[in-house]
Amino acid sequence: MKYQMARAPMGWNSYDYYDTTVNEEQVKANARFMAEHLKDAGWEYIVADIQWYAKNAGTMRDRYQYIPFGEMEMDGYGRLQPDSSRFPSSADGKGFGPLADYVHGLGLKFGIHIMRGIPRAAAHAHLPVFGSDRTANEIADPSSICGWNPDMYGVRKGAAGAQEYYDSIIGLYADWGVDFIKCDDICNTSLYPQNPYSAAHEVEMLQRAIQKTGREIVLSLSPGPALIEQAWHYEKYANLWRITDDFWDSWPLLRGMFDRCELWQNHRAAGSYPDCDMLPLGKIGKGFGEERETRFTREEQITMMSLWCIFGSPLMIGAELTQLDGWTLSLLTNREALRLMEADCQGRQFEKNESYAVWTNLSLKTGERYAALFNFLETPQPVACALEKVEQFAGSSRPIRSAKELWTGEPGTLNGTRLEALLPPHGARLFRLD
Amino acid sequence: MKYQMARAPMGWNSYDYYDTTVNEEQVKANARFMAEHLKDAGWEYIVADIQWYAKNAGTMRDRYQYIPFGEMEMDGYGRLQPDSSRFPSSADGKGFGPLADYVHGLGLKFGIHIMRGIPRAAAHAHLPVFGSDRTANEIADPSSICGWNPDMYGVRKGAAGAQEYYDSIIGLYADWGVDFIKCDDICNTSLYPQNPYSAAHEVEMLQRAIQKTGREIVLSLSPGPALIEQAWHYEKYANLWRITDDFWDSWPLLRGMFDRCELWQNHRAAGSYPDCDMLPLGKIGKGFGEERETRFTREEQITMMSLWCIFGSPLMIGAELTQLDGWTLSLLTNREALRLMEADCQGRQFEKNESYAVWTNLSLKTGERYAALFNFLETPQPVACALEKVEQFAGSSRPIRSAKELWTGEPGTLNGTRLEALLPPHGARLFRLD
Amino acid sequence: MKYQMARAPMGWNSYDYYDTTVNEEQVKANARFMAEHLKDAGWEYIVADIQWYAKNAGTMRDRYQYIPFGEMEMDGYGRLQPDSSRFPSSADGKGFGPLADYVHGLGLKFGIHIMRGIPRAAAHAHLPVFGSDRTANEIADPSSICGWNPDMYGVRKGAAGAQEYYDSIIGLYADWGVDFIKCDDICNTSLYPQNPYSAAHEVEMLQRAIQKTGREIVLSLSPGPALIEQAWHYEKYANLWRITDDFWDSWPLLRGMFDRCELWQNHRAAGSYPDCDMLPLGKIGKGFGEERETRFTREEQITMMSLWCIFGSPLMIGAELTQLDGWTLSLLTNREALRLMEADCQGRQFEKNESYAVWTNLSLKTGERYAALFNFLETPQPVACALEKVEQFAGSSRPIRSAKELWTGEPGTLNGTRLEALLPPHGARLFRLD
Amino acid sequence: MKYQMARAPMGWNSYDYYDTTVNEEQVKANARFMAEHLKDAGWEYIVADIQWYAKNAGTMRDRYQYIPFGEMEMDGYGRLQPDSSRFPSSADGKGFGPLADYVHGLGLKFGIHIMRGIPRAAAHAHLPVFGSDRTANEIADPSSICGWNPDMYGVRKGAAGAQEYYDSIIGLYADWGVDFIKCDDICNTSLYPQNPYSAAHEVEMLQRAIQKTGREIVLSLSPGPALIEQAWHYEKYANLWRITDDFWDSWPLLRGMFDRCELWQNHRAAGSYPDCDMLPLGKIGKGFGEERETRFTREEQITMMSLWCIFGSPLMIGAELTQLDGWTLSLLTNREALRLMEADCQGRQFEKNESYAVWTNLSLKTGERYAALFNFLETPQPVACALEKVEQFAGSSRPIRSAKELWTGEPGTLNGTRLEALLPPHGARLFRLD
Repeated sequence: MKYQMARAPMGWNSYDYYDTTVNEEQVKANARFMAEHLKDAGWEYIVADIQWYAKNAGTMRDRYQYIPFGEMEMDGYGRLQPDSSRFPSSADGKGFGPLADYVHGLGLKFGIHIMRGIPRAAAHAHLPVFGSDRTANEIADPSSICGWNPDMYGVRKGAAGAQEYYDSIIGLYADWGVDFIKCDDICNTSLYPQNPYSAAHEVEMLQRAIQKTGREIVLSLSPGPALIEQAWHYEKYANLWRITDDFWDSWPLLRGMFDRCELWQNHRAAGSYPDCDMLPLGKIGKGFGEERETRFTREEQITMMSLWCIFGSPLMIGAELTQLDGWTLSLLTNREALRLMEADCQGRQFEKNESYAVWTNLSLKTGERYAALFNFLETPQPVACALEKVEQFAGSSRPIRSAKELWTGEPGTLNGTRLEALLPPHGARLFRLD
Repeated sequence: MKYQMARAPMGWNSYDYYDTTVNEEQVKANARFMAEHLKDAGWEYIVADIQWYAKNAGTMRDRYQYIPFGEMEMDGYGRLQPDSSRFPSSADGKGFGPLADYVHGLGLKFGIHIMRGIPRAAAHAHLPVFGSDRTANEIADPSSICGWNPDMYGVRKGAAGAQEYYDSIIGLYADWGVDFIKCDDICNTSLYPQNPYSAAHEVEMLQRAIQKTGREIVLSLSPGPALIEQAWHYEKYANLWRITDDFWDSWPLLRGMFDRCELWQNHRAAGSYPDCDMLPLGKIGKGFGEERETRFTREEQITMMSLWCIFGSPLMIGAELTQLDGWTLSLLTNREALRLMEADCQGRQFEKNESYAVWTNLSLKTGERYAALFNFLETPQPVACALEKVEQFAGSSRPIRSAKELWTGEPGTLNGTRLEALLPPHGARLFRLD
Repeated sequence: MKYQMARAPMGWNSYDYYDTTVNEEQVKANARFMAEHLKDAGWEYIVADIQWYAKNAGTMRDRYQYIPFGEMEMDGYGRLQPDSSRFPSSADGKGFGPLADYVHGLGLKFGIHIMRGIPRAAAHAHLPVFGSDRTANEIADPSSICGWNPDMYGVRKGAAGAQEYYDSIIGLYADWGVDFIKCDDICNTSLYPQNPYSAAHEVEMLQRAIQKTGREIVLSLSPGPALIEQAWHYEKYANLWRITDDFWDSWPLLRGMFDRCELWQNHRAAGSYPDCDMLPLGKIGKGFGEERETRFTREEQITMMSLWCIFGSPLMIGAELTQLDGWTLSLLTNREALRLMEADCQGRQFEKNESYAVWTNLSLKTGERYAALFNFLETPQPVACALEKVEQFAGSSRPIRSAKELWTGEPGTLNGTRLEALLPPHGARLFRLD
Repeated sequence: MKYQMARAPMGWNSYDYYDTTVNEEQVKANARFMAEHLKDAGWEYIVADIQWYAKNAGTMRDRYQYIPFGEMEMDGYGRLQPDSSRFPSSADGKGFGPLADYVHGLGLKFGIHIMRGIPRAAAHAHLPVFGSDRTANEIADPSSICGWNPDMYGVRKGAAGAQEYYDSIIGLYADWGVDFIKCDDICNTSLYPQNPYSAAHEVEMLQRAIQKTGREIVLSLSPGPALIEQAWHYEKYANLWRITDDFWDSWPLLRGMFDRCELWQNHRAAGSYPDCDMLPLGKIGKGFGEERETRFTREEQITMMSLWCIFGSPLMIGAELTQLDGWTLSLLTNREALRLMEADCQGRQFEKNESYAVWTNLSLKTGERYAALFNFLETPQPVACALEKVEQFAGSSRPIRSAKELWTGEPGTLNGTRLEALLPPHGARLFRLD
């Protein structure tokens, strides 16, 4: 059985700030910040994102995000290793072990990003597959590539040596102490539009390999949009799956997330967390050549946080943590809002039209009720909903007597039989209803 | 709130045997049979299917299933009425009231089929909309038609008078005593492949109209395949939705249902029942010009019943009930199998490949566990599954000590740590595991 | 055999200025203007566009372009007649006969727009089909409608009475003296995206009916975009087919026409003219509620005229002719440019990239050569092409010694071995090369 | 300007018999046979098909048609060379020069198959590009692969060194004496269904490179189906393009070719020949593990030859020539039928329905007329066409006085005003009409 985490994962991911370039010191600094300022609120994962194995990563950024046919750190079995110039502690074959130890020492968990498949270089070099009498060229599928990253070939379905390969890398990661694996080019293999879940067998091999390690490792699938018709398969074999393509600090993308949350609203359970992608808050973009404060207004950030929470998405901070300002930090440490990360909280879209949306959330365990009001317009507008219907919709008959807005701590307006708020442009309010 | 039935509906539908031609005496005869032989096992709905309003229905069957621009019984508000030559008790504007009374008098419930929208004839005649100052031509959408039935125009989204129209027909049906409405050309409006849920607003108007009546009316949507990306909308506004196009007595269609059940397996809840369509058992096909015994072998019938039950589909008998043989009747009155109709029973596909499938079912209330083994091949084969994994998968750690096959009543083979059976071609076994 | 006109038709069409509202006096006034000012340059067709049969056309323009289930002038055989309140000379069943006579009297030709199929009202009323023992309901296909106009049903493929219906309307039009039929909802039946040439059989019936009349009637198919995979069928059965959706005075649409001309460049021959749609020049838009001078700049108008000419599209003026200004008139009466309308002139795209295009045209009869240079940018730029390659491409080895720009009459710049021009934003130059 | 051949190419191709395995002796033997028995009838090209550069080609045929990551003969610039174990004369860097000389010595022309792009092995090895200061990794596009052959990467659009690479290989082929290049994975890059002409820029580079050589080299593009919306591009840059996926000896494929010929009928001109693929006649299939006589009946072979001729497809024999029987040989040397290969002969579909088709062909130069009658049924049927309409359709008014069937030499039946024949199942008759 896959790992049945009782909460949607909360953590930090290096991508939004560092792109392909993050190094050991930077990972450690972010981990220390988390341990000191965020851990108590429930944040725990520190994830090194894409191409930690690539030499010269980021040096041709004007032409390529990922250098084609570039040099990669790899062992004799085609298993990628951290680029030792960026991750010095990985020298002498220690991989991410020392860094994972460091993170664990702070009371946190450690995660890495991988591309599905086996390095193209390993296949062309006919390297042996660890724990098998097969070679990489026998298990690599020359017709299965990633449309946007040149590093890997997919692994053939049913090939002798294929499961052994996945066992060999996941076993290595488990030995290092990895707690979270974000596997990319697997949730939606968009190069193959007539078969966009073409690597379903690799998801199965990954989960099987994880279970063999005996370690509680979260399996997170990217990129999105995940395929709703494969929901049952994600739910059976993975923990997180991205329901969106890469999310950035732009209103149209945030507005679009309401459509995606609508679609996936009843696919969340213990161990199964549809994923709205990283939070592009605070300072981001450096590795992409445009270091900046998030382009989201504060009201949009509240909208994002309210949606991610009431829907129950995993939360992964994209910001460089060491540069977090106080306002953003307060947003990320609102424990009353983060309560919604628990698996017993079930979010449902109550209403959505062209100009606003209303969501509710009910704890199946405690009966706690929440509601969020969202304004899609560029202008302020009042948004309201009938309390009686919210009660019904949330499946409880206990009358609602009061409301508390969680970002401000202020009481909500219960106008006779209605919950009401005047929302700023692109703004939101998140209420606990008692 | 929509009607939250605690069990998937079970009943009889006139279509598979009568096509468009069923009449009052035939409906009554089937109702009497159900009351006498099936009611105790949980069967309760008697549903008159398509074109009960059409004069001359079936008289041009060699050329048309539905006569284009044919005559229909309709009141002055464009509301269709039963064809009084086939339903004599409907004379003098009594509609289906007397027939519903008759069915209720047998302790059963009464349902009808409708096409979404408003009669084309009403729109061209500019008839008034009951309860409104609008006319049919103002609410009919001339660009919204059914691709396979010529009777209706869709109702415009947001038009003044549109909700009043739906209120007027559903109010009438409620007055008649209708308990179940199967609305067609609405679940998948296949003429519009770029917008196959083009009548979502009509689903909402229907549900709103039903709630206004205060009556517990089941809303069933056809035809399929339902659109998985609209699952949340069906779940919010409807009770049943067809997950398949018309189902008939052919192995490829039955084999295909495993794919559809896989897709929809976690969308069943109290009041929400993904629908595998009628059971083409017993004597069927008369109205289609080929009266026959079902073409399914007995083993295939067991496979169908086992899948419908362990998945939890509504059960609607297609056979002419008065001609049911004893074997089929015994299949339909197996109370241990029909236990799976209850909303607390949750079916999950455990495994599926090219040659076989395994499903499990767990009661969230009682912890009861079930498993079904299916053979897709034309030849016999043994199918087995590990008990420990079934326990885990079903979410319980209580060990499985015995198994009872529900169609035969015989004990199942627990071969050490495995549940095993030798399955005949296209056959199945359904077990309760204790 | 279809009519093999030796020139692409040139004329005036009422749509761009009048929408559905044109009346007899307006048609006549435009015809008189054409006879006086345009005829000598080759203009000859006067075409009354959509819904000349509709009562109250245009009176609900804020809600509908075409009033659903509105009243139409129709004879007892379901054949539409001109709305006599707008076309008084059509009284007493004379149809468009008198108006056609008037136009013919000016030395011009007369055309009308029709929707494919048979009036829905005729089908619902079971009207007889002229020249047949069938009725409209027997030949109307209730599943074949237009997605944007509510007037008609398509005619069934192979139905008895179907060809007779088309014979009956085309015969009537021939009796009236119609020279040009623009049939709509037939070139691309876009409601049916999986079969967008769903009315191919109606094209065939139309052409067959035309040939039975013995009259040289142009058959023009709308709307576009025409389907390139059906090119052979258009070429066999029609004279004109729209290669674009409705064209209006907007640069993106004009820019897009280069892609469509590229696609259709070698499908023009005597009797076969891919159609770029009307020229939205001069005064347009009145019937649409926004009477205006064309939004195209003069340079864009030159670009449009140059492309339509060098590609060889039919030319249909959208402007109200009586309000034409002198500059526009001079553009429309440039005989050297209009020479390219002849069937022996074969246009070919020589080069196209993101910022400019070059076209050539060669007369297969006389060996005359033309070239046009186009600037896609918002800024001026020089565009040039190698003369030697133009010679080759145009299939002639005779050296190019001089160039004359046809809109200005000025000599072109032959810079050594290159034809060159500095083009204004969105501008063009059209050269004859000698 | 591309090579403007006045006839559709006729030749032999190694694929249908040898798959990937053909060797020098086999090529020579087929060339000798052609020179002796076929050349006089117009046959001239000898083409070595796919993977002549691959070591061990065909040795893992049970698992792969093309061995993934297998060894290939390649020079220091990433230019593939003949496998010297199969083509001994290529030793010492002589490539196909000696073999081309041999073929030329027989009065024939020599052709080769290539995959578009640059070897993956060259890109991973960072080999230099001949005639450039760039390396293979800089011009190879890691996201552009062939879906069914693992050898190459596509070449990047606009990359420095890209044209030089194509110049370097085409220059080499020209030096060898190659007259015909069949480039694969380029006409329809089917791995990319949303952009199936994704290598259009490589077609342009190929044609540019060919013109630089000054040699008259035919450029043939595979595989099909070619994209009708790109017809103008094929016509501008290539000589042959495959209008079908691989064609084999099966009736459904032959029946389907009528649809493809219908689609492409007016895209043939001097230098432009839509290509129906090889003729799977005689002895074929050895390299595929099923050496056999063609599965086509004699009547089907006549149908195939008649369609290819009257449509004007290139003719490439798939059979092992040295094993040709007399009957097949006579079919291939019918000079009256092969007359239709000339560019002045223009084929047009006259009629097609579910059970038969009629084609005509007219010489634009001489006015010669041809007609072919085809029977699609499994049973004999008479097929006829009106002579007057054929005259008209063929664009001539000269009356048809006699008909000669070209495969039998017998006079055709002119039954009053009709050309008629009783056709055997799947059979055809090809007539010259005088």
